[in-house]
Amino acid sequence: MADNAVVLLSGGLDSATALAIATDAGHRCFAISFDYGQRHLCELEAAKRVASAQKVEEHRIFKLNLNEFGGSALTDNSIEVPKNQQTSSEKLNDIPITYVPARNTIFLSIALGWAEVLQANHIYVGVNAVDYSGYPDCRPEYIEAFSKMANLATKAGVEGKQIIIETPLISLSKAEIIKLGTELAVNYHDTISCYDPTKIGAACAVCESCRLRIEGFKNAGIPDSTIYK
Amino acid sequence: MADNAVVLLSGGLDSATALAIATDAGHRCFAISFDYGQRHLCELEAAKRVASAQKVEEHRIFKLNLNEFGGSALTDNSIEVPKNQQTSSEKLNDIPITYVPARNTIFLSIALGWAEVLQANHIYVGVNAVDYSGYPDCRPEYIEAFSKMANLATKAGVEGKQIIIETPLISLSKAEIIKLGTELAVNYHDTISCYDPTKIGAACAVCESCRLRIEGFKNAGIPDSTIYK
Repeated sequence: MADNAVVLLSGGLDSATALAIATDAGHRCFAISFDYGQRHLCELEAAKRVASAQKVEEHRIFKLNLNEFGGSALTDNSIEVPKNQQTSSEKLNDIPITYVPARNTIFLSIALGWAEVLQANHIYVGVNAVDYSGYPDCRPEYIEAFSKMANLATKAGVEGKQIIIETPLISLSKAEIIKLGTELAVNYHDTISCYDPTKIGAACAVCESCRLRIEGFKNAGIPDSTIYK
Repeated sequence: MADNAVVLLSGGLDSATALAIATDAGHRCFAISFDYGQRHLCELEAAKRVASAQKVEEHRIFKLNLNEFGGSALTDNSIEVPKNQQTSSEKLNDIPITYVPARNTIFLSIALGWAEVLQANHIYVGVNAVDYSGYPDCRPEYIEAFSKMANLATKAGVEGKQIIIETPLISLSKAEIIKLGTELAVNYHDTISCYDPTKIGAACAVCESCRLRIEGFKNAGIPDSTIYK
């Protein structure tokens, strides 16, 4: 019988690829998305399209309000999303304003709770240390520390069944991710990467995330079907 | 200026004591409680009484629905709360049915997000490895792993400011906790420990948590003002 896997699904390009990789590895995939007070709910619509297209066993949308704490341009309406800012070559201690405090830790922890109930031994997350080197919680050493903690925290860990945090994209470039996903038949038209989309989900083309996406398709030599405003 | 501290406040005896210890250490305390789908909301009423009596800077109640996943007697109405069951001497791999999957990890992660926004360097949690030896996420090695992960996950950690997970009760007996809290003027009448209270918050006297509380007051030689049904 195939192992169960919980897959974090944001509606973006990376997590759609991570889901395809998990499915390709033979897992029964349970996708989880978070309605966390992000400014743009079209992300969740994208996650639903991806989950449906990739035929997951179940897709849960978990509600929690991270904008209650503020502190990030992605949840706090009083902070502007930066445009045309170079972040991929930033040093580690220049943490972008689009960083949401402890977001990956909170999302992985909730996924861990669901994984325990499902007896899933794998959690897939599309973090990437190449493009997002400014985010502390996208680094391999962070993932390694989370894994260690997770196996001490849980029933499964205590009983000797390892829960593995799978980060298949962590060292890939955006172009490599797009090539891999395309081979696995990911429909990137379903996904959205923009930090500041229009109400109907058209991408701005100028935020950090749009620029990485545009450059990624270009470098991969694959046509970009994203609708830009 | 005093350091800010985030304190996890459940409404129980232990976290009320942890808050008093944090205040006594000179911290400005920000309390957080979770409306997580627990069966008994009188816990949150107790947390409000404790936060108010101990004059915290702010008390937030964070809503997230852990009973969506099920798997624990504390959140799942289809699982009965066990009575008269001996758990304190259980072996580690006999994990009680009152264990909520990844609960401490999820709560600590959310507290970590708030701590980042508040620039708090301390998170207090009233976990205890003596009475709750059956819970994997109450053990010192778990807390140590969480701390390590937290400092890799966050801005503060990257910038070299340690976030310290403070567990002042971890190796104390219930009687020692009650003695210490009484010295610090904690009003235990405000708190509730019962896993299965009546609608108005009277304790059952027979669940594991009630039995530990009753025994604790007795061993401490301090009158127990809890209302039992």
